[in-house]
Amino acid sequence: MAEFSDKLSEELWTTAHALADAARASILPHFRSAGLNAENKLAEGFDPVTVADRAAEEAMRAVLAEMRPQDGILGEEFGNAAGTSGLTWVLDPIDGTRGFLAGTPTWGVLIALSDETGPRLGVIDQPYTGERFCGGLGRADMTGPLGPRGLRTRAPRGLDEAILFTTFPEIGTEADRAAFGRVRDAARLTRYGMDCYAYALVAAGQIDLVVEAGLHPYDIQAPIAVIEAAGGVVTDWEGGPAHNGGRALAAANPALHAEALRLLNG
Amino acid sequence: MAEFSDKLSEELWTTAHALADAARASILPHFRSAGLNAENKLAEGFDPVTVADRAAEEAMRAVLAEMRPQDGILGEEFGNAAGTSGLTWVLDPIDGTRGFLAGTPTWGVLIALSDETGPRLGVIDQPYTGERFCGGLGRADMTGPLGPRGLRTRAPRGLDEAILFTTFPEIGTEADRAAFGRVRDAARLTRYGMDCYAYALVAAGQIDLVVEAGLHPYDIQAPIAVIEAAGGVVTDWEGGPAHNGGRALAAANPALHAEALRLLNG
Repeated sequence: MAEFSDKLSEELWTTAHALADAARASILPHFRSAGLNAENKLAEGFDPVTVADRAAEEAMRAVLAEMRPQDGILGEEFGNAAGTSGLTWVLDPIDGTRGFLAGTPTWGVLIALSDETGPRLGVIDQPYTGERFCGGLGRADMTGPLGPRGLRTRAPRGLDEAILFTTFPEIGTEADRAAFGRVRDAARLTRYGMDCYAYALVAAGQIDLVVEAGLHPYDIQAPIAVIEAAGGVVTDWEGGPAHNGGRALAAANPALHAEALRLLNG
Repeated sequence: MAEFSDKLSEELWTTAHALADAARASILPHFRSAGLNAENKLAEGFDPVTVADRAAEEAMRAVLAEMRPQDGILGEEFGNAAGTSGLTWVLDPIDGTRGFLAGTPTWGVLIALSDETGPRLGVIDQPYTGERFCGGLGRADMTGPLGPRGLRTRAPRGLDEAILFTTFPEIGTEADRAAFGRVRDAARLTRYGMDCYAYALVAAGQIDLVVEAGLHPYDIQAPIAVIEAAGGVVTDWEGGPAHNGGRALAAANPALHAEALRLLNG
């Protein structure tokens, strides 16, 4: 894995914050706005979450054109743009669009910077709560209503003491649901519905596990960088790299990851 | 239903805000604190959510002893205290204790004022996000990160266009789950895991329905007051008053309420 100089790391973090700021400013005017009525969908030709999603990705692409034109871009809304630096920004302007439509506060903006080995830097930004979870290139920290804090995953404990999250109980295929059910039945507490916020809670040491399926690369790359910087482990359900999407298992530490992985596989 | 003078309504709202402020100050130091580790549970004899729960209810009882000693109190942690005014404050210092333990931002403080007819005033307070949803005695409004706003339930639409919430898919008894499933299958979108926040979203016009079971009176009285002030309807699953707890159906308007009630009953 390539070493990044301090100067480059600092420049990349400055860019990441500029991206998150631009996305916040583009999205918040649309959140819980009158425009979220179904009526307006017909009038505008797009549903409002799509309008906010596109506005935010366009704003982030404009920031990159200014600050890091040499980098590639992989975005949810506008696809790939090749770069020359070997680095790619992976952007999901609104992760949790259904939660956004429902007015819940736990949708977020996902920003990752990847090289050929996978994500090196990640931001899970929560525009409405004002939280920003950052990890990679020497950082593992957050800001929010309670002030700045370091990120560190939760102290090791067995699965029978672990808190597990997933976005919805209708996860993946029937076989996926059966595999998920084995982990759920062994965990102390299972909760639903937090979108990318659940990954932030792993990094913040609040919960122990997230199990999800059907992910895109832009859904998981930022969480991988943030959680790994905080001491956790993220893989697919076979224990391999998760950064190409699909099924993901995020755990607070290697021992718990191994225990959950065994149950997912039978 | 007794008329409340403007002066009394104002005094009661001043008291309600003082209660919510006191609860916030008591709870936030415990949220996501190091004390939330299971280790400390053994050391302190209580789990930290219980510590925060009790501290908040004690703080609220102290406010009432000062500001409204003539009113009764029904609290989750310390039970009943009789009053002489015919009015009772119904207090749930932390609604969503499992969410609180997991670090999610959607647990809340529930405060209601009831007379013999049921709740007349309600507050759903969200200490971490800084939101406060208020309804009853002439008010239906909120404050939060996007500033002050009025509360009004969502425009009428059929169940097939409705967004439904419940706290967890393991709701109630097997018969309860079957009844819930009929509503879920007819709704456009179902989401889980928001605790009292889901009721606030009904009042704020973001979602259309909440279906829950196994409630205590202090879980539902504040949501009833807030949602009804915003134009919605809350009953039990038989269409009767819900303020004594049990199973609740909250809807954005009477027509949708009737449609969901029919499905709950077969």
